[in-house]
Amino acid sequence: MSEPSAPALSRETATALLRDKFAPWVQALNLSIEEIGPDGVAMRLPYSDDLCRTGGLICGQAMMTLADTCMVFVVSAALGGFREMATASQNTSFFRPAIGTDVIARGRALKTGRLLVFGEVTLYVDGDDRPVAQATSTYALPPPKS
Amino acid sequence: MSEPSAPALSRETATALLRDKFAPWVQALNLSIEEIGPDGVAMRLPYSDDLCRTGGLICGQAMMTLADTCMVFVVSAALGGFREMATASQNTSFFRPAIGTDVIARGRALKTGRLLVFGEVTLYVDGDDRPVAQATSTYALPPPKS
Amino acid sequence: MSEPSAPALSRETATALLRDKFAPWVQALNLSIEEIGPDGVAMRLPYSDDLCRTGGLICGQAMMTLADTCMVFVVSAALGGFREMATASQNTSFFRPAIGTDVIARGRALKTGRLLVFGEVTLYVDGDDRPVAQATSTYALPPPKS
Amino acid sequence: MSEPSAPALSRETATALLRDKFAPWVQALNLSIEEIGPDGVAMRLPYSDDLCRTGGLICGQAMMTLADTCMVFVVSAALGGFREMATASQNTSFFRPAIGTDVIARGRALKTGRLLVFGEVTLYVDGDDRPVAQATSTYALPPPKS
Repeated sequence: MSEPSAPALSRETATALLRDKFAPWVQALNLSIEEIGPDGVAMRLPYSDDLCRTGGLICGQAMMTLADTCMVFVVSAALGGFREMATASQNTSFFRPAIGTDVIARGRALKTGRLLVFGEVTLYVDGDDRPVAQATSTYALPPPKS
Repeated sequence: MSEPSAPALSRETATALLRDKFAPWVQALNLSIEEIGPDGVAMRLPYSDDLCRTGGLICGQAMMTLADTCMVFVVSAALGGFREMATASQNTSFFRPAIGTDVIARGRALKTGRLLVFGEVTLYVDGDDRPVAQATSTYALPPPKS
Repeated sequence: MSEPSAPALSRETATALLRDKFAPWVQALNLSIEEIGPDGVAMRLPYSDDLCRTGGLICGQAMMTLADTCMVFVVSAALGGFREMATASQNTSFFRPAIGTDVIARGRALKTGRLLVFGEVTLYVDGDDRPVAQATSTYALPPPKS
Repeated sequence: MSEPSAPALSRETATALLRDKFAPWVQALNLSIEEIGPDGVAMRLPYSDDLCRTGGLICGQAMMTLADTCMVFVVSAALGGFREMATASQNTSFFRPAIGTDVIARGRALKTGRLLVFGEVTLYVDGDDRPVAQATSTYALPPPKS
């Protein structure tokens, strides 16, 4: 999805950005970057009782937050480096409960335009290939300075 | 939107539910119920540096979480009492930044069916009637026991 | 939603645009402009057996098409004149069936930006104020020429 | 996605359903079933000037209609036979224009529940593997009779 000449956004750089560019409340999720490249990003939300409604059910709010955060890295990796951007819209569908387990996000860009980037993030519980949720997003990039 | 005979869900009961039925990570937002009735619910997200990316910009993830939480009360109030329910989908659009201020959510049900409830939550910054974001949601109710 | 100085897009001009700027297959719906102004647009989809699945049920595809067409006029009216634009996304929710009757669309802009416009269209059956469907949309405007 | 014992919905049966179960206005698109099976459905929208705005640009309304129609077959094939169903929501994103060419839809179910089915349809122009649009949908099945 990215131009071949785009320089890589390394896992180390992305991990540092995760600490620097996101709100403390989002950082409290202890997200980590599992894989990052121009073709996609995988992130992990570790299980915590703090994220659960009754019964070990991970709340949908944490999953929407994971998906949005993952997309920031998808877009940045597709563009070759971190970019300030604004979520224009995120549509999240919830298929199955995630109970008592880490959640893995796998995101990819569907279209990388000059002003708009479209992407998709699918969420899984660790070790199961049936999706638990999916988000499709539109991000607006700041217009290039002339 | 609710049947006329639906008993009220009081602000006190809703406030207690906010402490009992949501994940600790969601409770960290310190949301409060401002108004609640069968025709709609208003909630407040108090400003906190913990919710901000750089520059006092309240993160979209907190706004999606506010909208989802508000809709649980919209649906419960429309149905006359708290109901277990699952978010089927939430589509959130972001119009303007919310900077350095509380965010107010105003939600209402658009259709209260037996199995599906549709609703809409519009977010404002306190004291400005231009919306900063809007979420439309579908919730699935558990099938009635026979 | 529009700037005060925006010149009006009249109902006559809009009706002519409906003939000139849309695909013949969309024109086959015989849509008409009922009201148009900077604060919103109302359009009518007249009932026809051609739009129905069995039982006089107006197909959702016609309602999505009505909503998208209405939003083009909402955006144009908010901007003061017809603009080439591209739908970036449209999220449509269907609440109730529309059976054997005209469908009325009422659309308005939620945010009119320089590059993105957000809007909402609610659909009704004629004479009933309960919505049958609702669409929220994002439109991308071509960047201003420098 | 379907249970192993689900009987097949053949291409011939699906083609007949396309004539019997959809509105004449939808049939005017001359859609055809290219592939159908429990794991997914491919459909073709043949190019026609009737679907175009100026410049051979296929209108988004036809693409939303194609996606919705494709999902009816995705759900039916996943469930082993045609089922009456109602679109609860469809979220369509438009990435690139489709100009002067057939459009191919590839749809699949993401979750087949007892009451709700979630799916995704990606649209391509013939011979190009970059998506031009994508729709995610939720369908409500009528409750089983007891």
